[in-house]
Amino acid sequence: MRHLRLLLEYDGTGLCGWQRQLNGPTVQQHLEEALAQMLGHEVAVSGASRTDAGVHARGQVATFRTERAIPLDGLRRGLDAILPPAIAVIDADEVDDAFHPRHSATGKHYRYTIWVRRDRSPFWHHRAWHRHGRLDLGAMAEAAQALVGEHDFAAFRAAGCAAKTTRRRITAIEIGAPDPDRVTLDVRGTAFLRHMVRIMTGTLVEVAHGRRAASEVPEILASCDRTRAGQTAPPQGLELVSVSYDGRV
Amino acid sequence: MRHLRLLLEYDGTGLCGWQRQLNGPTVQQHLEEALAQMLGHEVAVSGASRTDAGVHARGQVATFRTERAIPLDGLRRGLDAILPPAIAVIDADEVDDAFHPRHSATGKHYRYTIWVRRDRSPFWHHRAWHRHGRLDLGAMAEAAQALVGEHDFAAFRAAGCAAKTTRRRITAIEIGAPDPDRVTLDVRGTAFLRHMVRIMTGTLVEVAHGRRAASEVPEILASCDRTRAGQTAPPQGLELVSVSYDGRV
Repeated sequence: MRHLRLLLEYDGTGLCGWQRQLNGPTVQQHLEEALAQMLGHEVAVSGASRTDAGVHARGQVATFRTERAIPLDGLRRGLDAILPPAIAVIDADEVDDAFHPRHSATGKHYRYTIWVRRDRSPFWHHRAWHRHGRLDLGAMAEAAQALVGEHDFAAFRAAGCAAKTTRRRITAIEIGAPDPDRVTLDVRGTAFLRHMVRIMTGTLVEVAHGRRAASEVPEILASCDRTRAGQTAPPQGLELVSVSYDGRV
Repeated sequence: MRHLRLLLEYDGTGLCGWQRQLNGPTVQQHLEEALAQMLGHEVAVSGASRTDAGVHARGQVATFRTERAIPLDGLRRGLDAILPPAIAVIDADEVDDAFHPRHSATGKHYRYTIWVRRDRSPFWHHRAWHRHGRLDLGAMAEAAQALVGEHDFAAFRAAGCAAKTTRRRITAIEIGAPDPDRVTLDVRGTAFLRHMVRIMTGTLVEVAHGRRAASEVPEILASCDRTRAGQTAPPQGLELVSVSYDGRV
């Protein structure tokens, strides 16, 4: 049985997220249907990150198994022809049977984009969170540093999160301003709880607006109380940039 | 009677272009309806460039007249609230009665974006033209130089173009590669014929693909024959970057 891995990009705007569900089209469903059409058998696809509706990806990783001897390049090109424009396959390779896109991952990189221009943008409407008013990026960076390291992130997870443990390790948070109209948060960690990056972003933006002190963030972490953290930033500003495996295939 | 000017951005993806028409929503129609709703009287809007369906704008200029004493900031914010997310008003000011967004323009800047990565992009699907295979940017730049200056551009206009004269002046064409996946053509001129930038782009891309010699371009220009030039590049790669007035208001 061959175990194949795909590297995917998608614009999450019109999609109901990664995971198959009843209320609308998802990336997993599109992929499973396209693969079944090409391979002539049912296919179950696993993904590295269960991105929510509206969240984008530049480096989602997915795997599936097949007995078919289809060449990797033919697989990539066939999927390219079948999948909707919102989903693209960037690469395909073969992996060990033991590889798992989520469990084998050693790190993930998410980016959250905030649109800070006074006027809204037709081009960033589905790609960023529009925040009015000045953002104090220094205070934001200071607050972000309190989140770096291994912590119990129970205060930073969605109500419906099913994870058994809430300890996670954030390896880096970088605050950037690629142009005067945008602020980006690049968050790297080993694994994430549900909505964790979005709740972190919502909290850091409240600090940047001066509505909370940067010094509150360690207290919020220590409280393990979701109601102490800030709002969940909306999905359209988030993208999964990449998943790393430290050479594991 | 006040004469007001708006600076507009729009994502042309779901729009039927600038000019009001029967078969779908246009920027002019959205603007005229939003202004009528705010001002309580019918409004006729003039634009600097009649962008086609699917073409984007970062610097479209539009004017209209009203007796209402609405403050410019209130006008901008009101339009922001009424217009769909695909259209944004970036600035508003008052101009002389004699000002006309198209006739007073001294120059226009258009950008055409080509997506050159092997794999298509969910993010550039509605913003660029996907071309496979190597593009020879040196040959493209050489061919582009033959178009700079004042020429009869009859070979580079759409069949339905109603312009009385076909002499136009292109002041500059710059070929850029902002990242390895994109090639941009920045075209500046005093005025343009219908589809002129898109036919120029289609012709230059054929040169870049090695299907025509750069030296053919002066012959195509001299022929004044539309059938000699290349294909019309698709609309989604084009954006109106800015319109200049050299201080005329």
